[in-house]
Amino acid sequence: MSDIDISGWVCPMPLRDYPQIVLGHGGGGKLSGDLVEHLFLPAFQNDALASLADGAALTIGGARLAFSTDSYVVRPLFFPGGSIADLAINGTVNDLSMLGARPLFLSVGLIIEEGLPMSTLGALVERMGAAARAAGVQVVTGDTKVVDKGHGDGVYINTSGIGLIPEGVHIAPQNAHPGDVVLVSGTLGDHGMAIMSVREGLEFETLIQSDSAPLNGLVAAMLAVTPEIHVLRDPTRGGLASSLNEIARAAGVGVLLEDRRLPVRSEVSAACELLGMDPVYVANEGKLIAIVPPEHADAMLDAMRQHPYGKDAARIGQVVADHPGMVVSKTGIGGTRVVSMQIGEQLPRIC
Amino acid sequence: MSDIDISGWVCPMPLRDYPQIVLGHGGGGKLSGDLVEHLFLPAFQNDALASLADGAALTIGGARLAFSTDSYVVRPLFFPGGSIADLAINGTVNDLSMLGARPLFLSVGLIIEEGLPMSTLGALVERMGAAARAAGVQVVTGDTKVVDKGHGDGVYINTSGIGLIPEGVHIAPQNAHPGDVVLVSGTLGDHGMAIMSVREGLEFETLIQSDSAPLNGLVAAMLAVTPEIHVLRDPTRGGLASSLNEIARAAGVGVLLEDRRLPVRSEVSAACELLGMDPVYVANEGKLIAIVPPEHADAMLDAMRQHPYGKDAARIGQVVADHPGMVVSKTGIGGTRVVSMQIGEQLPRIC
Repeated sequence: MSDIDISGWVCPMPLRDYPQIVLGHGGGGKLSGDLVEHLFLPAFQNDALASLADGAALTIGGARLAFSTDSYVVRPLFFPGGSIADLAINGTVNDLSMLGARPLFLSVGLIIEEGLPMSTLGALVERMGAAARAAGVQVVTGDTKVVDKGHGDGVYINTSGIGLIPEGVHIAPQNAHPGDVVLVSGTLGDHGMAIMSVREGLEFETLIQSDSAPLNGLVAAMLAVTPEIHVLRDPTRGGLASSLNEIARAAGVGVLLEDRRLPVRSEVSAACELLGMDPVYVANEGKLIAIVPPEHADAMLDAMRQHPYGKDAARIGQVVADHPGMVVSKTGIGGTRVVSMQIGEQLPRIC
Repeated sequence: MSDIDISGWVCPMPLRDYPQIVLGHGGGGKLSGDLVEHLFLPAFQNDALASLADGAALTIGGARLAFSTDSYVVRPLFFPGGSIADLAINGTVNDLSMLGARPLFLSVGLIIEEGLPMSTLGALVERMGAAARAAGVQVVTGDTKVVDKGHGDGVYINTSGIGLIPEGVHIAPQNAHPGDVVLVSGTLGDHGMAIMSVREGLEFETLIQSDSAPLNGLVAAMLAVTPEIHVLRDPTRGGLASSLNEIARAAGVGVLLEDRRLPVRSEVSAACELLGMDPVYVANEGKLIAIVPPEHADAMLDAMRQHPYGKDAARIGQVVADHPGMVVSKTGIGGTRVVSMQIGEQLPRIC
């Protein structure tokens, strides 16, 4: 029936340990990384993809562009502090921003489940429009597919985006350098715990809200301090730990954190403790990690704190020449712990 | 629980006739058009989106770019003549080509169902890599999400793409002009009937193969004849009829076809007759419609026929000032019929 010979495909190690896809392959941790390294990179081989950034930096017709894509499959569609619509717009705006680009244009691809109430679709599309206006980007092209009832979860959204990278800006995971300072723009784990609380029906004393937000304004304010930012990353799936492990590996450096400096809301901290989770692995949707030369660290932190999306910014650690490829954190009681890459994911379908 | 008031959304006419999404909203016919007109355009309002082309034409940093997105949800994943992987690469290559652009860079967003055999994913990703190389484009960025077993169909693929529009090329549906000649690059309905035959388990005397192909080479050969091509369109979902109706509406012109000139393979014609379908509404994945000034028509047709993907090209009709917004065809027995936009779709999940 088919002219394609699936059986001819030779499964590379270590994918062979998983004869079938598991949820963790979409979790942004080690299993996701294995797919990228052993399947996508060999199939699509090119330099832009190999940079393993949140998007690709390209030169087209004389312009330096950023190009990024993300699909959103979060459950539930609406949650405290946002919706799949906000995530879809802000997420791609943020991926472009992490290349230092000014996000300009977005596409929206909808995969809708038959039977979705028109009022829900209407509310989501209006919400996407509002999020795009708030971020200062235009949705210029789109596509809609409908799948049979039961073969979806209301709606899946893909957004792709194009941004313009200013002259003199060269931000990439590979650029982290021993001596650099590691900054984070605010509290960790808010998005993941907001989803967790509604999905599991947990009630905490204080409502935990997703931090979903567009970070292009914050990045513009940071680039105004100096274009010499080495790395930017938004720690979404897999949280701070996965992002820093990826950077450490890409740059061949170590990262040394200090646990006591990690900003975590008390209600998020309490919820994590209750559920046996660690905030450094929990997803964020409106935070960034910045790795900057030490001489710019104080000015950068000041600029971040003056922006609404950076008011809780903190210096959390430094890049070191020791233990390359590893992230280590000093604990409160004077010891150190290895902050490893997680294997799968703590919480499926978080974005 | 949610801070979003869905009930506040006022459903515009004529969406109100459909309180829930039906499969036809993804069919590329009138219902799809209603979503675009009454929901997406008001929410995302901007000129690029309002052009209603297969993608957006944008100016960024001095470069004229094409930007397009499409999600693929076809069932089955593999079919005679191709797979969802080939469609995903070729489809976005073609959408960019229909703006006259040279496709350069693609993104790939995968939504994979838990439990998909790793060998199937491997074969699809390799197939995407091969299709990208065949089309001369690079997959430079991507994203993978995994959804729970039962909430998907193996894999859904989104591709978005960026292309460079050469100077002097201004192709848009609005440019169709009375007197222009309507050309098609080959036979109609092959993709849709190939899917239909495997999905319904029908056996025809000859195997019907999908026509999935990248059309950027053909378009480059056509632009070498003259950059003065008024309209290009690849008649995918909804087929030739829907594409020509959209063009007639966008340009405020009529289209007059001749039934006897429409190229249709005998086996596709026979299958359509058996199933009560009309080839002009059946999806194509490797064909284009070109609308060109009459003085260039013969040279254009010659150039098309010299290209492997245009060897069955034909002149099928003309643009007229009469019956603006309508497509009419002369039948074989001397009468005329109105070729209307279809409401939903003949065949769900065709691409």
